[in-house]
Amino acid sequence: MAGRGLPEGFVRGLREALGARVLDRPSDLDRYAADALGVGAPPDLVVTPDRTEEISTVARLCHEHRVPLVVRGAGTGYTGGAVPTQGGVVLAMERMNRILEIDEVNLLAVVEPNVINGDLQRAVEAVGLFYPPDPASLDSSSIGGNVAECAGGPRAFKYGTTKRYVLALEAVLPGGEVIHTGSKAVKNVVGYDLTQLLVGSEGTLAIITRITLRLIPKPPARATIAGSFPGVQEAVDAVTALLYERVVPAAIELIDKDSLRAAEQYAGTRVAEGDALLLIECDGTPTAVEEEVVRVKRACTVAGALDVRRSTGDADNDNLWAIRRQVSLALRATGLHKINHDVVVPRGRIPKLFDVVDELRRDFGLRIACFGHAGDGNIHVNLMIRPDDEDERARATRAERVLFERVVALEGSISGEHGIGFAKKAYLSLELDSAQIELLKRVKAAFDPHGILNPGKIF
Amino acid sequence: MAGRGLPEGFVRGLREALGARVLDRPSDLDRYAADALGVGAPPDLVVTPDRTEEISTVARLCHEHRVPLVVRGAGTGYTGGAVPTQGGVVLAMERMNRILEIDEVNLLAVVEPNVINGDLQRAVEAVGLFYPPDPASLDSSSIGGNVAECAGGPRAFKYGTTKRYVLALEAVLPGGEVIHTGSKAVKNVVGYDLTQLLVGSEGTLAIITRITLRLIPKPPARATIAGSFPGVQEAVDAVTALLYERVVPAAIELIDKDSLRAAEQYAGTRVAEGDALLLIECDGTPTAVEEEVVRVKRACTVAGALDVRRSTGDADNDNLWAIRRQVSLALRATGLHKINHDVVVPRGRIPKLFDVVDELRRDFGLRIACFGHAGDGNIHVNLMIRPDDEDERARATRAERVLFERVVALEGSISGEHGIGFAKKAYLSLELDSAQIELLKRVKAAFDPHGILNPGKIF
Repeated sequence: MAGRGLPEGFVRGLREALGARVLDRPSDLDRYAADALGVGAPPDLVVTPDRTEEISTVARLCHEHRVPLVVRGAGTGYTGGAVPTQGGVVLAMERMNRILEIDEVNLLAVVEPNVINGDLQRAVEAVGLFYPPDPASLDSSSIGGNVAECAGGPRAFKYGTTKRYVLALEAVLPGGEVIHTGSKAVKNVVGYDLTQLLVGSEGTLAIITRITLRLIPKPPARATIAGSFPGVQEAVDAVTALLYERVVPAAIELIDKDSLRAAEQYAGTRVAEGDALLLIECDGTPTAVEEEVVRVKRACTVAGALDVRRSTGDADNDNLWAIRRQVSLALRATGLHKINHDVVVPRGRIPKLFDVVDELRRDFGLRIACFGHAGDGNIHVNLMIRPDDEDERARATRAERVLFERVVALEGSISGEHGIGFAKKAYLSLELDSAQIELLKRVKAAFDPHGILNPGKIF
Repeated sequence: MAGRGLPEGFVRGLREALGARVLDRPSDLDRYAADALGVGAPPDLVVTPDRTEEISTVARLCHEHRVPLVVRGAGTGYTGGAVPTQGGVVLAMERMNRILEIDEVNLLAVVEPNVINGDLQRAVEAVGLFYPPDPASLDSSSIGGNVAECAGGPRAFKYGTTKRYVLALEAVLPGGEVIHTGSKAVKNVVGYDLTQLLVGSEGTLAIITRITLRLIPKPPARATIAGSFPGVQEAVDAVTALLYERVVPAAIELIDKDSLRAAEQYAGTRVAEGDALLLIECDGTPTAVEEEVVRVKRACTVAGALDVRRSTGDADNDNLWAIRRQVSLALRATGLHKINHDVVVPRGRIPKLFDVVDELRRDFGLRIACFGHAGDGNIHVNLMIRPDDEDERARATRAERVLFERVVALEGSISGEHGIGFAKKAYLSLELDSAQIELLKRVKAAFDPHGILNPGKIF
């Protein structure tokens, strides 16, 4: 029977507090055994609280009984952050899914963690406001998960990642204390910035139970430019030209040949002439968009685009972006196993990153599909391996270390938006030196002295 | 003799490492006894290191001998953050003042902490780039100090405060270890975000020795609108109208009657017809600026402006903003003692904040001059008191607690950009509950177990 390894008093306490919302049937537990990474093991118990007080109780019980506690949002993460590695309890946020407030005067929203990103976007756009962070998973990932991982997305190029929009948090500490960080004011320098410390902390420091987000006015106009190029090199030249020309579109996304062909096959339509596609979104006032479109088209043409077309309207815009968002699904639909690394380099060093990818293809004989946020230097490098080919898997493992080493040598980072979870923790010391890792562990202990929150992650 | 209370081995170690750059003459020490707050006491010794290794040595010695260590930048802070309260050593950053790199391809700059903000702005603008944070002290305050306090400024309305531009830090821990947080990539989610934790930590966690800043393209055009209003109420109405109309200028600054008259007297020119002035900066492409200027003028006129004029060119722009930046100096030149509180409320609640100020004027019989970042809800509320009037000082002290209570009740914060230092630490618990303060102290201990860095600040 599930939950058997847990202390009896602990399980009793949980049931007293949450009743039937303590789940222990194997079929229930199995549903929480993996996230988008596809690797994991079931927890001993799952709880589905519906308010902060219940979460506080769960935390306190886990803290007192030293039971691992893994917070789970929508389970769309790529690094295993929402999956237990040492059993214990999964705290599933699925009932904490209300938009509590959209404040048009103060330009902010208050949400519970499991509000789906896309639902929030639609709700605020209905009143002329805008929540920019747009991970490809926006129709399935939760704001709480976005905050825990500091999700990005195409529009991060112009608008920044999730952290730029988090003003305040309610969070539960392992001992059960409820803290309130930040405020509804857009500036706040009272005490250390725990708000930003919790953003991206991957569920290891505290349990985020309420989120206050800064909103901005919705840009009144937008247009998407689709530039088709002979290959990645020409597309990257166009990106470099835009950076040099000081043009800042909302998004500059790159899709390479393998990704493009997979996406086209998945969607059943031909999208681009060449072997690389740039999707560039311009937004702002109507005249500003027109000015930017001219400059973007020129940069693409000068860099050697085979075809540059502008979306014909909102529906066409959405279609183009749907293709981009489906690249991940499309690559998985090839039947190959996709190992996704969201490495990031200083934005001008994208050409060097693609040199590294070519080197990996050559040296390790791997298929590698790349796409992502070219303007930010944040490219999803997907090692595509045959599921049953042990040798290929071993080569991929060697290749990923080389990839990470090269990225760090380029003064970049091994993760731009997916986090470390357990998938990348073996590589942490490639990027951070031991003094910093020790410091991070002391910070962890300041929040979670018994190490119950998401153990086995990051470190 | 100065330094006498310090352990002998400690002073000897310092002199071995820094030689003549250990200062102990009373005249030297007195220069480091106060910052812009004007309150303080001299340290026992001052050191002026010129590289990270020396700073590491100083930190290690202080850590081993339990000697307080206060980092000082340009000394322009308003909360006493750079001033010792328990003697010890002031680590003066004045020799660490080089711009190390301006990287036009990757849109970033690397600087030592004592680079003056205005010098960096001019250097990056010379190559078409832009560093937005613009505290009024920009011609005298240092980037390191700006980072330590998370300085804002008028342009924070559109562009955000200092924290939005800090990508990476080199910092020295009290034990002497040198850490490197963040990276040159614009996204990075590897480990906890120590970069943002150090921003605004007021010199209490680590010694920042090198700063990597994100830059953005310089907006090609700008224009300033000066709107003169009968009083604060009408000016605030114009701000509210702009927020409702979803117009986001670069800056919306408000100067009230007392501040305006002081600034005019100081500058020797009449600036505004009425008793309140709004300065609104529009920037962007030339056409975007023209569009925005039309909307801004209309909002001012509808709200009851007596006069709305647009700057005639760059020189005129600069003159208008010089007046705004001199308000603080001008208020001090009145001969009254100025107690500056940079409170902040959710941006739509500015009218309520001015109601609070009126209440304080009435209930405590005080002169209060207000100016600041209206678009952000961040208003500098200056209690102006006669230096020798003990009763007035006592009333000001009572008024400031009421001010802070009201601001917190409005879901704002007692400091938007100046920090806590020792000036506001008695009020910390108005905004943060005890569980959070205890957590902040544990975070402090994770960095600085012996509490040598800037003791007596924040807590």
